[in-house]
Amino acid sequence: MIVLVANLGSTSFKYKLYNIDADTETVLAVGEADRLGLGQSIWSVSIGDTEIEGVVDLADHAAAIEHHLSQLVVGGALESMDQVQAIGFKAVHGGPISGAVLVDDQVLDTMQQFADVAPQHNPPYIAAMKAFKKTLPNIPQVAAFETAFHQTIPPSRQVYGIPHEWVSELGVRRYGFHGASHRYIATRMAELAPKVKTVINSHLGGSCSICAIKDGQSQANSFGMTAQSGTFHASRVGDFDVFALLKLFAAGLDQETIFKKLGSESGLLGLSGVSSDMREVQRAANDGNEQAQLAVEAFVESCRHYIGSYLAVLNGADALVFTGGIGQHEAAIRTAICRDLEFAGIRLDEVKNQEAKGNEETRLDAPDSRTQIWVLPTNEEWVVARQTFQVLNKKNNEGA
Amino acid sequence: MIVLVANLGSTSFKYKLYNIDADTETVLAVGEADRLGLGQSIWSVSIGDTEIEGVVDLADHAAAIEHHLSQLVVGGALESMDQVQAIGFKAVHGGPISGAVLVDDQVLDTMQQFADVAPQHNPPYIAAMKAFKKTLPNIPQVAAFETAFHQTIPPSRQVYGIPHEWVSELGVRRYGFHGASHRYIATRMAELAPKVKTVINSHLGGSCSICAIKDGQSQANSFGMTAQSGTFHASRVGDFDVFALLKLFAAGLDQETIFKKLGSESGLLGLSGVSSDMREVQRAANDGNEQAQLAVEAFVESCRHYIGSYLAVLNGADALVFTGGIGQHEAAIRTAICRDLEFAGIRLDEVKNQEAKGNEETRLDAPDSRTQIWVLPTNEEWVVARQTFQVLNKKNNEGA
Repeated sequence: MIVLVANLGSTSFKYKLYNIDADTETVLAVGEADRLGLGQSIWSVSIGDTEIEGVVDLADHAAAIEHHLSQLVVGGALESMDQVQAIGFKAVHGGPISGAVLVDDQVLDTMQQFADVAPQHNPPYIAAMKAFKKTLPNIPQVAAFETAFHQTIPPSRQVYGIPHEWVSELGVRRYGFHGASHRYIATRMAELAPKVKTVINSHLGGSCSICAIKDGQSQANSFGMTAQSGTFHASRVGDFDVFALLKLFAAGLDQETIFKKLGSESGLLGLSGVSSDMREVQRAANDGNEQAQLAVEAFVESCRHYIGSYLAVLNGADALVFTGGIGQHEAAIRTAICRDLEFAGIRLDEVKNQEAKGNEETRLDAPDSRTQIWVLPTNEEWVVARQTFQVLNKKNNEGA
Repeated sequence: MIVLVANLGSTSFKYKLYNIDADTETVLAVGEADRLGLGQSIWSVSIGDTEIEGVVDLADHAAAIEHHLSQLVVGGALESMDQVQAIGFKAVHGGPISGAVLVDDQVLDTMQQFADVAPQHNPPYIAAMKAFKKTLPNIPQVAAFETAFHQTIPPSRQVYGIPHEWVSELGVRRYGFHGASHRYIATRMAELAPKVKTVINSHLGGSCSICAIKDGQSQANSFGMTAQSGTFHASRVGDFDVFALLKLFAAGLDQETIFKKLGSESGLLGLSGVSSDMREVQRAANDGNEQAQLAVEAFVESCRHYIGSYLAVLNGADALVFTGGIGQHEAAIRTAICRDLEFAGIRLDEVKNQEAKGNEETRLDAPDSRTQIWVLPTNEEWVVARQTFQVLNKKNNEGA
């Protein structure tokens, strides 16, 4: 089955094209385009060793996918556009919808209902799904929700201390996100070390989350109701005291400004005043910028907060994994996070840590560490491709 | 020095009268009055074995203290009202004010500035301090702020991931509260077990907080900017996703209603739908009420969340302490909180736990526990009395 896995930003389009069956998969092509709707989009496609690229006006995600499908035929990755049997999406917030599902009107309606709490994520996906349905009506779409992996979290770790009707009637609870990444790491760790039963995975990138995993199932995730909560993020706030808003209101800030700042001018960027990019913030910190130093240290503390908490959830961890751009590539952050965890049997080998190549699977624990420590490159598209295959396969079998 | 330690509710007044010097202290009397401003206040005073009580209209805190001072003379605890040399207050939110301080206009102004984020706590204290100054102008007042013990928390654990100017200009950061109680436990543990260097104290009562203590100093506290955050409380929300507010706004709830519910109809009460009293919620849970069961379990999880986090802060704990109404008296909650902490060397002795009398200092750890586990009755008034003595003593010495 040929499956295209789409990754949408508000003005960007990335994808991987898979040939996939029950046991194996091949990546046929990888492509992207930017500046959708802004004119002069730069697009590129890699097919094996061949790279084709160019500049063209692409009005929206539908124009981008049509352009790319035609280029995939030109480049020889596809014989015809009709060969694509499904489009898979790493969709973010589906509220009560569980798992990976065929996109239909009901799914779109539910995503719309939760667009208020996923303002940066749900709207571009809803728009693209509708547009793809119009321009590519014969290609089924599958939404693999980022919340799906976290359905195994027990209710006692899902709920907030709020009036019960807000839980039951409005769906206000912790959902958890980064499901594709945490699921990939859970799957991969089981292959790499079958005796490892309990894993704490730290997905640290533009957005960050920590996940407690037992026997391959999520037990807790640092994201709450929305993808703005939990640990520090590049430019989103993470955990915050809701009553602190009263101080911001009293200072004359209006609600729209406050939520805009919390959603896009906070986290590493807001506290450092330097950048949302950890590399630049670290550089400034090393140059003596005190705000940047504080931001890096507070980022580390926010990760350690959840790692400590999840050690209690799991009664210790057999493995601690780092993934995502920061998790894979920033050795100094890994060092700082692993500090003072000897009580739980976690000991980093600093030489292995410094020498680790972020794009290779590498073990970092010291010989006397009770807990394995790993850098593992994540592969969210693989999870979405596999879930998309499973949904389509099930549908085809049921239809047969 | 004779010091009266005042504990104010919005319509209640409680106090302890101490005779205190640098090394020792004696409680001369304990008293209280309720229904201030509501008519028919019931008041009582205990002086040694003698109890006097009655019913009288008391308009406000000033009327209450005047009435009680006169009764203390009648009852023989004081020869005259003039003997009281200071009134100490366990004040809640003083923002940037550090430690225990003489109450003056500047202190009152600062407390007023932070009344917006301590709406249930600061206003009655401000009103009472002003009234006492009018009716008892010769008695100095000392505010021992609940935040003071937490000044040793490093900045990296104080800050949120917010725009830096909100920190520097508006004072939006984690302050921590329950300082008198956590300070008392830190002091008392040092006497009981001098070798214990790291302590996690769980103050679980009508409001709840966990504190990481090292060498007698606070390293982290579960309260954030306000006393509504952190673990579950009896009727306040604890930690919540600030972006979940957007879902509540979208459901048509207005800001005032939302914050009122989060501040007084949430926590154990909100989630259980039964009561803000843990004993009643547990009873309902035992009778099969599923909401009550969820509320108890989620309460426990919120405590374990911070205990796990603070194990990471302290690199394991030499002692875990339970105090406060729930912490001292609810053995089943202690059992649930201590579950699955063997990885950190924490093992509860279930027989000792069940047999513990909440009002006695008792050790609960199993013989093979690396961590000592204690029930310790807290004594916040003692801390306020001692701090009040120190402030006055310093002032008198400087004046001499």
